[in-house]
Amino acid sequence: MCLHERFTVSKSSLSEILRTRRDAMLEDLFALLRFPSIANHPQADGCGPCAQWLAARLGEMEFAAEVLPTAGQPCVFAETIVDPAKPTLLVYGHYDVQPPEPLELWHSDPFEPEIREGRIYARGAEDDKGQLFMHLMAIDAWQRSGGLPLNIKVLLEGEEEVGSPNMETFLRDHANRLAADALVVSDTGFYDAEHPSITTALRGLVYVELRFTGPQRDVHSGMYSGVLANPIHAAADIVSALHDADGRVTLPGFYDDVEPLPEELRQAWANLPDREEQMCRDLGVEALAGGEKGFSALERRWARPALDVNGIDGGYTGEGSKTIIASTARVKLSSRLVAGQKPEKILEALRAFLADRVPEGIRWEMDVFAQASPVAFPGDAPAIRAAAKVLEDAFGKEVTYIRSGASIPITELFQRILGLDAALLGVGLPDSNVHSPNESFPLEQMARGAEAVAMFYGCLAETLHRGNGSA
Amino acid sequence: MCLHERFTVSKSSLSEILRTRRDAMLEDLFALLRFPSIANHPQADGCGPCAQWLAARLGEMEFAAEVLPTAGQPCVFAETIVDPAKPTLLVYGHYDVQPPEPLELWHSDPFEPEIREGRIYARGAEDDKGQLFMHLMAIDAWQRSGGLPLNIKVLLEGEEEVGSPNMETFLRDHANRLAADALVVSDTGFYDAEHPSITTALRGLVYVELRFTGPQRDVHSGMYSGVLANPIHAAADIVSALHDADGRVTLPGFYDDVEPLPEELRQAWANLPDREEQMCRDLGVEALAGGEKGFSALERRWARPALDVNGIDGGYTGEGSKTIIASTARVKLSSRLVAGQKPEKILEALRAFLADRVPEGIRWEMDVFAQASPVAFPGDAPAIRAAAKVLEDAFGKEVTYIRSGASIPITELFQRILGLDAALLGVGLPDSNVHSPNESFPLEQMARGAEAVAMFYGCLAETLHRGNGSA
Repeated sequence: MCLHERFTVSKSSLSEILRTRRDAMLEDLFALLRFPSIANHPQADGCGPCAQWLAARLGEMEFAAEVLPTAGQPCVFAETIVDPAKPTLLVYGHYDVQPPEPLELWHSDPFEPEIREGRIYARGAEDDKGQLFMHLMAIDAWQRSGGLPLNIKVLLEGEEEVGSPNMETFLRDHANRLAADALVVSDTGFYDAEHPSITTALRGLVYVELRFTGPQRDVHSGMYSGVLANPIHAAADIVSALHDADGRVTLPGFYDDVEPLPEELRQAWANLPDREEQMCRDLGVEALAGGEKGFSALERRWARPALDVNGIDGGYTGEGSKTIIASTARVKLSSRLVAGQKPEKILEALRAFLADRVPEGIRWEMDVFAQASPVAFPGDAPAIRAAAKVLEDAFGKEVTYIRSGASIPITELFQRILGLDAALLGVGLPDSNVHSPNESFPLEQMARGAEAVAMFYGCLAETLHRGNGSA
Repeated sequence: MCLHERFTVSKSSLSEILRTRRDAMLEDLFALLRFPSIANHPQADGCGPCAQWLAARLGEMEFAAEVLPTAGQPCVFAETIVDPAKPTLLVYGHYDVQPPEPLELWHSDPFEPEIREGRIYARGAEDDKGQLFMHLMAIDAWQRSGGLPLNIKVLLEGEEEVGSPNMETFLRDHANRLAADALVVSDTGFYDAEHPSITTALRGLVYVELRFTGPQRDVHSGMYSGVLANPIHAAADIVSALHDADGRVTLPGFYDDVEPLPEELRQAWANLPDREEQMCRDLGVEALAGGEKGFSALERRWARPALDVNGIDGGYTGEGSKTIIASTARVKLSSRLVAGQKPEKILEALRAFLADRVPEGIRWEMDVFAQASPVAFPGDAPAIRAAAKVLEDAFGKEVTYIRSGASIPITELFQRILGLDAALLGVGLPDSNVHSPNESFPLEQMARGAEAVAMFYGCLAETLHRGNGSA
């Protein structure tokens, strides 16, 4: 493992530069946060300009940077080769953000960042503009200290929040340019503020939209109540039938391939401090009452698959009443998958479920919006060990190895297509409201994160250098 | 029964005036149709101005007319007492209309009437601005023929489409002013274009909004899928549980008070021409597959209660995907009731059902938007017999006695509070798309309807006059 004294520059000098550059860099981050870079809003036109801005900003930092098209939103690719003999690190981040709705719950404009009580409030403040920006801060600090200790390639995606539908093609098309010795992704978080953490597994995801159609137009419910099959009822029947009374998903074969949790991990998780109470307070619920009976909340989040409706609409949804039977109902539904499960198999089971159950008088369609395999990383990979080391140094606490219930589909693609295990060097916090109104990121957490990232570059340069047998 | 030759003016002279006045009156109808008089849109401000316009128009027709407030949208009340010794007819109509959404399905602006292929297209073209306007046309014709044959009071409501929530109070408060010898309501339709019809029973209605709340904000589904109770699932479970596999409503006691259909009516309905196939074509469905097994479609529409969700929403409903678990889900739900059933009892059963079944981790609320008892009228009431007579004359065909699956809550209030059975002299047609996009009303049907209404005034004046023993 790396030793600080062997960095080309000292840790304290990097920290000093990060501190003096903080306000200037913050201005740039605010500029980045102002782009409404929502991947899947047909109206929003924030992604292209955001990608251009990022390429330009990286261009100012001695990177050869360009915006590369995909079938969807463009990617930013930038590289700086300080010395072909040195190892190369690929930094991945995503500049697209979740839609900000419901807007009325925000205390400030989601696309006009604001600092309140030491936190930056904005959509993307943490996920992932804030976290990817830690890399720009670290690169800036190294460059002002005499130069980067390794070659860096930066890949910034514009469709992570919609499941990275175009990245498989992109990685295959650009495999040579993306080739690297290690991969770092800063898009994950700590178990809690007291537990710097490395995520070693992520759930997979399938996301579909189901549409149920009855009459070809909304009709008077007085005239037709009791004779017409109601597409909202059909949608509700399907949604309801997808879970049994014990919270288990009823899709045939859903659990067949789930790898059981090793007993030692179950024990280790049981020994983590209990965050359930605080989580319930934060969410305003009495209990974490969802999911399968017989598993702890952590097991359900980290090691069990799940299925949730993310949105539903049909018929009259305005104020007051309207007496109609709707023509259509739409359901947005996603499933989180764990090691062993295959997205294709789940989608197939879902199609069969619908074909079996949708009643006479109702037509149905299913569109697949995203599919990603679950992924896990070996904790002893050099980049992951380096990430753990720098987190311990920057935050002064031992690292906890955790999993995430969320998905970063591209990590599985990196592994499968480029053979790169991601070091998930993220410093997000559970109370940052990512994907929710009033997303925020503490300035202090970001500063320490940038420090950890800067040390990671040095540590990794040294580790991989020695690993290459040239030390 | 009345004989035409005994009218104060001849049928043919009334018809002639209606014809010559048609274009001028149509301009007024178009002005009326332009008001976006939607009762329950907080943004829409169409009801007040529409009521003012109607009062002014009636004022021009020798009526003492005024706009009377309610706790909701105002009523128009107007009267013309041609001779205190003559009988008095109360004419009820409603100037409010259903919301026009979904707007994208309209071929022309719902509030800018347009004539295409002999039909007026506009929201309210038939329901009920077009039908109430037949009375203004008939009054205009009588006045231009020497004067009305009876006293007329006109009551035009602004909240019929939201269940007339303020009319019970209004009728009680104004019982004396509204006192009349007969009541006519033109807000119903024919069995089909070939069968002029009188509706003798209407279903009742309860309409509620249910809200289900889980976490206090939308949250990242990756982090919480499998641990949080999902309010959309809770909503779907409730909606799904409200019907069994045979299409029966599962609310305990729901069918207890339903009066069975007399065998002779069942037979009579079975002999009506079968409209199912045409209805299916019109609705774009393969079959009328909803409702209880074991009853014909007509029985299910006219003599059986039903329950339908009219709208549902929760979570992300925009384009594409968003990986959240929603904070809330809303369900708009209504039940149509038949003779014997009581709205209060159904609401109570629904509350108990929710209290029983909504799972841990989800809070629920229920708002009642409308409740109306079912209602039936004796076919031998003088006004109803007169209505049948004039329909037969105007349309040249025998009248069919039918029921309606829809509700006109105020008809039950008129019966209960003022002791008046409504003569449902409506000439709507099944293909008019009421409550749907592209509502329309054929000019010819409206013209014949106005003729029938004009004759109805004469016929009723004579019938009631003789009924009073003064002939």
